[in-house]
Order: sequence, then C-alpha cells, then structure tokens
Amino acid sequence: MKVKVSRKAHFNAAHRLYRQDWDDKKNNAVFGKCNNPNYHGHNYELVVSVTGDIDPETGFVIDMKILKDLIRSEIEDALDHKNLNVEVPEFRTLNPTAENIVIVIYNKLRPHIDAGKELEVILYETPRNFVTYNG
Amino acid sequence: MKVKVSRKAHFNAAHRLYRQDWDDKKNNAVFGKCNNPNYHGHNYELVVSVTGDIDPETGFVIDMKILKDLIRSEIEDALDHKNLNVEVPEFRTLNPTAENIVIVIYNKLRPHIDAGKELEVILYETPRNFVTYNG
Amino acid sequence: MKVKVSRKAHFNAAHRLYRQDWDDKKNNAVFGKCNNPNYHGHNYELVVSVTGDIDPETGFVIDMKILKDLIRSEIEDALDHKNLNVEVPEFRTLNPTAENIVIVIYNKLRPHIDAGKELEVILYETPRNFVTYNG
Amino acid sequence: MKVKVSRKAHFNAAHRLYRQDWDDKKNNAVFGKCNNPNYHGHNYELVVSVTGDIDPETGFVIDMKILKDLIRSEIEDALDHKNLNVEVPEFRTLNPTAENIVIVIYNKLRPHIDAGKELEVILYETPRNFVTYNG
Amino acid sequence: MKVKVSRKAHFNAAHRLYRQDWDDKKNNAVFGKCNNPNYHGHNYELVVSVTGDIDPETGFVIDMKILKDLIRSEIEDALDHKNLNVEVPEFRTLNPTAENIVIVIYNKLRPHIDAGKELEVILYETPRNFVTYNG
Amino acid sequence: MKVKVSRKAHFNAAHRLYRQDWDDKKNNAVFGKCNNPNYHGHNYELVVSVTGDIDPETGFVIDMKILKDLIRSEIEDALDHKNLNVEVPEFRTLNPTAENIVIVIYNKLRPHIDAGKELEVILYETPRNFVTYNG
Repeated sequence: MKVKVSRKAHFNAAHRLYRQDWDDKKNNAVFGKCNNPNYHGHNYELVVSVTGDIDPETGFVIDMKILKDLIRSEIEDALDHKNLNVEVPEFRTLNPTAENIVIVIYNKLRPHIDAGKELEVILYETPRNFVTYNG
Repeated sequence: MKVKVSRKAHFNAAHRLYRQDWDDKKNNAVFGKCNNPNYHGHNYELVVSVTGDIDPETGFVIDMKILKDLIRSEIEDALDHKNLNVEVPEFRTLNPTAENIVIVIYNKLRPHIDAGKELEVILYETPRNFVTYNG
Repeated sequence: MKVKVSRKAHFNAAHRLYRQDWDDKKNNAVFGKCNNPNYHGHNYELVVSVTGDIDPETGFVIDMKILKDLIRSEIEDALDHKNLNVEVPEFRTLNPTAENIVIVIYNKLRPHIDAGKELEVILYETPRNFVTYNG
Repeated sequence: MKVKVSRKAHFNAAHRLYRQDWDDKKNNAVFGKCNNPNYHGHNYELVVSVTGDIDPETGFVIDMKILKDLIRSEIEDALDHKNLNVEVPEFRTLNPTAENIVIVIYNKLRPHIDAGKELEVILYETPRNFVTYNG
Repeated sequence: MKVKVSRKAHFNAAHRLYRQDWDDKKNNAVFGKCNNPNYHGHNYELVVSVTGDIDPETGFVIDMKILKDLIRSEIEDALDHKNLNVEVPEFRTLNPTAENIVIVIYNKLRPHIDAGKELEVILYETPRNFVTYNG
Repeated sequence: MKVKVSRKAHFNAAHRLYRQDWDDKKNNAVFGKCNNPNYHGHNYELVVSVTGDIDPETGFVIDMKILKDLIRSEIEDALDHKNLNVEVPEFRTLNPTAENIVIVIYNKLRPHIDAGKELEVILYETPRNFVTYNG
C-alpha cells in the first residue's frame, strides 16, 4: 500500500544558458535570448514527491513538516535569490537548463530520503515549461 | 490504446491528527498544531482517474457524468462538511492523515469501477500538500 | 502616484455557522450543512493589499517582508489550525461567516498600517467563494 | 538519467458529441447536452511531455522552443478556432470525445519526436475534466 | 461596513464573431479567425460579485447558496452548452464579444439582486482574456 | 456602459534591489537577499486592463489582438529575458522594485491607449506578491 506524498515549494533565481567552450555565435544560435550575458531569471516552482509505505504508527509516509524543512535547508537555502551560474557550485561547469537543475535538486535531496522510498522532483521554470526526474 | 480519464472534485471537512492510545505530550510532539483537540479543517481537492480502453461505440473510457455522480454519491456525500474523526466511521480508529484519507477514498470508489480498469486518486489537503494512491 | 501592494497568505481552520439564540430547526433552515455541530473546515486564502505613495528612498509602498510578517503575527498566529467558534475570541458571539471573518481580519490589521494608507482584505473560503472588505 | 520535459499550450474549438449512425433519441440518451446539434465549445489546455536522455552538449532533452513550435504547427494550426466535427478531417467519422481528441493529438505529434523518446499528451477539456495518453 | 461577496461559476459555449451587415472580407479583416462560420468555442469562467451591508441576523450579505442557484437558473441554464449566435435570443442581432456577453449576463442577474446592492460581473473568455462590468 | 477589458501576459527578467548612493550595509539592511550583487530573477506576470465604452460597430472596447500586440512590442520586447538594472534604461537610476516596474510599464503603455480610456496594470513579481497601478 504505497502512497506518494507531494510538497510544493518555490525559489527564484537568475541564470544564463551557455557553454564556456562555445563562442558567442554558437551560444546564440542554440540558446537564443536565454544566453543573455547579463542574465535573466525565473520563479522556479518545485514539487517534491516521496513514495513509500505508510508508517502504521503515525499514518504518514513522511512527515510533511520534515519534508518542508528538508526542501528549505537543502534547496531553498542553496538556490533562492541566487545567480545559479555564479553562486551555485554545481553549475560552475554545468549549463543550468531546467533538465540539469532538476537533477541537481534530486541529487541534493536523495541522501536525505530513506533508501526504501522513491523520490520524484518536478521543476517549473515558467508556468508553461516544466521538467520531471525520478532517478 | 489505454487512456486515463480524470475528474476533479472537492469537499471540505474538519479533522484532528492524533492517536487515542498516545498521551497529549506524544501527540503534540508528533502532530503539532494538527493535534488541536478543537479541530481545524481543509478544502480537500480531489482528482479521480480511471484508466482503460476506449469504448469504440461511445468514444468514452468512462462517461464523465457517471464518474462525477459516483464521486458525489460515494465521496462528497460521505465527507463533505463533516468532522472526519467524529462522523466518518472509517476514521473512528484510523488517524485521518492525508495518506489514510486517500486510501479510504480509493477503497470507497474501487468496487464501483470496472475490475479491468485502473483507479488512481490524488488528494490535495492544501494547495501545497497532496498525496496520490493507485491501489 | 499611488500603488496598491498585495500579498497572498493562507491559514486553515474549523468553523460552524449558527446563532446560539436560534433553535436547531432555524439554524438548519438558514445555514444548512454549514451548521454541522461537529464543525467542518476550510483552507482560507487571503489577499492583503495596502495602497499608498511610493517611498522615494526605497521604492516601496510597504516592505513586502514587513507585510508578510504582519500577516503572520496578527492573522496566521491567531487563526491558523484553530476552531474559529471555540478558540478565537472575536467569534464567541459573532457568527464566523466569510463576511464577518474578513472584517475581523481587517480590524486586526488596520492599526498596524499607516493611517494615510488604504487597506483591503480579500478572503477565499473556497476556490469558488470569496469576500472583499476595505473599511 | 531520463528526464521528462513538459510544455503547456492551448487552443479553443467547437464540437458536438454524437454518432451519425444513431438516431437523436439514442444520441441524447448517451451524450446529453453535449449532443447539441448547434455545437458548444471549449478552451482546450494541452500538456505535451517528451521523456528521454539529456543531450550532454546542450543540457536539453528537447529544445523547448522546438517543442513549442511543433505544437503550434501540428496542433494549434490544425485545431485552434475550428469546428472539430466539420473542419478537422480526423473527426469526420470519429466522435470528438476528449479521449479520441487526445489520441489524434498524440498521433499527429509522434512522427516528429525521436523514436527513442517517449511522448505523453494530457488534454484538459474543462478545468475539471482531463485525459492522458502515452501510446 | 459594505462587503463584496463573490462566487465563481462556469459554462461552455460555441460562438462566432461577425456582423450580418458586413461582407465576409470585412468580417475577416476585423474578427480574423473568430469569424469562422463553423463556430469555435470557450470555457467561460464567471465571477459574480454582490456588494452590500451584512445582514446582522445571518452574517451574510447574500446567502452564497442563493447566489449560486441564481447563477445556475439565470446564466448557466441559458448559456451552457449552447451556440450563442443561434440559440441565445440576446445574440440574434448582437455580436457575442466578451464585452457584449458580460453586459447580457449583468442584465439577466440585475433584476434578481436587491436594488440597494451593487452587482459586478467578470467574464473570462480564455485564461488570458477577461472583461468586467458593473452597470 | 463602460466595460473593462483585461489581457494577461508575462516576461522573465533578472534584477537586484539596491541604491547606488547607499553602502552595502544599508542596502543589505533594507533589501536583504534581494540586494544580491549577482542578481536573482522572476517570472513576471502582467494583467493590463483598458476601460472604456464599447464600440457599437465591433462590440469591442479594444481589440484583444491589438492589446496583445501592444504588450508584446512595448513591454515584452523591452523587458523579457533582460537584466532590468543593466539593460533597461528606465532602471539605470531607478530601483526596480515591483512598485517602480509597474509604473514604468504603465507609462510605456499609456501613450498607446486612447486618452478617453482608463488604463490599469497589475504586476505579479511572484505568485504571492503583486502590485497594481492605474495612473
């Protein structure tokens, strides 16, 4: 009787899509205005889901307060109001596309979730664009 | 060619998280302000999904009107404007966490859906917290 | 050059609509299932708006962090996870309809907002029902 | 390391649910007011998801601009501001239920997505009714 | 102490924008694809607001159940699943733009609301386009 | 018979709140993490409303296509995927708070709207924070 428990969160950040090993022309061709060297930004919305058996004592798969605090300490403190390219070590050499960000977030959370439980992360870059990763 | 058909519904209810076999101190430590003995409440939002083959005659997996009426008779009539702990038999001895509520809802609907079709229930306790169960 | 600054917040609570000076029959006739003596509940969503001149120094009408903290200390701490009828003094003798709740919230916030600024409060009782009050 | 990339889009259209080989009485019994011979309509909301490996060069599973343009050329140009029964060849003899529409949309997009990538389409007929198809 | 009470509702309908006294060329120039002679359609979302004093007996400006039933009988029964141009008398000679529809809705509701109370109607034609009218 | 016509739009941008004539200590005290010198960013959502009489010929207050194109040319082209502090002339010396941005947007649109019509702009900086300006 596995149940999936989901918690929404959000952070906002600046970023720029580009590869240091490409010249401007190629970066512009591939990443368009997302390659603006002065950066642009987003309100990233996050849905973190943990799937597992219900603890018969508490009736919880995971205490939502614990999940909320974990998202705050591991993700919001690391990414909120930050410039992803400049200030977040994971993106020093990794292009901060939504796909790469969602994997970074997953990898930051995974060690803190019981090995027997599944983890899924959905990341909205805009209200119309989002990505999903589950390991 | 299986298609998943989903219908949103909602109900609002009062509840309290606690175990009768725990003392106040332990209930407070685990359930915090959700253990308020005077109850608090939520607008529960529900997404009920049925997955199966399309009936070639009608073009429906399940008639949305039938699904809507089923949710009303089995779930809304049982839970809407109710105190879950006091008035809903399933929660007399079961802690009405979101996880336990979504399983109760699933079990109430399951007998009314064709055995060959899959059922999934998503329950939003708040706009930021939700749970998913598919049997 | 007056600008209106708005902040969303939320709390959840149990309540019951009824008048102590009416008998059950009349309470049921007027308030229907909202008169359930065991209470029901809602996720109340709140939009608090302050209208005034922009401070030329900061570019703020009101610092959104100050407004957020004010809503937390005056409204969320007083109403969140509470039984409005039983635990909130303002509703001891006042029926907690959405209309009456929005006026109570306005009156709690008004002394903390500069007299020269206008205040408006919108309260969603459900996603489909809401009320607005501006003094 | 497969990531699912999702893009929202929308179109609006008129339609009518009925079978030409049924008489009015049977069409009304099964399809109710959706059988109005003068048509009714919807704002259809669409979520198109592509799942696959991240291209290590770009950090994209699929360039969101390419996906957006594909949805426009294959789906919006074909269905937006159209009468589905009268003007869209696929529905000349196929009842335009949400289930059948989502399969038509999937089949229009599938040839344009790399064979090694998975495709899923969600179609909202109203904010409360939606269907999902993944082939 | 006037409070504004708002209720959301919805209906879906087909329509076409055009003037019978204009030729096709002019209708196409002004109304573009909204002039499709085979019609297109929308999920219209509605917010009906009534502003007035709170009845000290009930705590209501207007009973939300009464407002909900009024919207159903006067608006949904008249417009839902209809072709506005063909089946709704008000649009026989009046172009069913969002502006004209919102005035028709206002005029249908106005006689049923106490003269001392203000009425406002917001009509969403799509999630991105809406109109507001208050008499 | 004045009707208010509203159109939603969006853009995303990077920005930083600070005053060049204040030292770091004061900027941090007043603007907190919004003063990050490496910038952060938002998905700004916009609601532009024009209020006026309905043109009896077209049934429009303003053609929604014209309003949509105006928002694109005057606002989206100027602000989307930009660093507001660095790349938008109006914010060279003006702190890009939501209050100041909404006035800049209003002033950019106002000359393009008939003098006899009213203009209102709502700007969401995050889903929970927004500002409104109407001249």
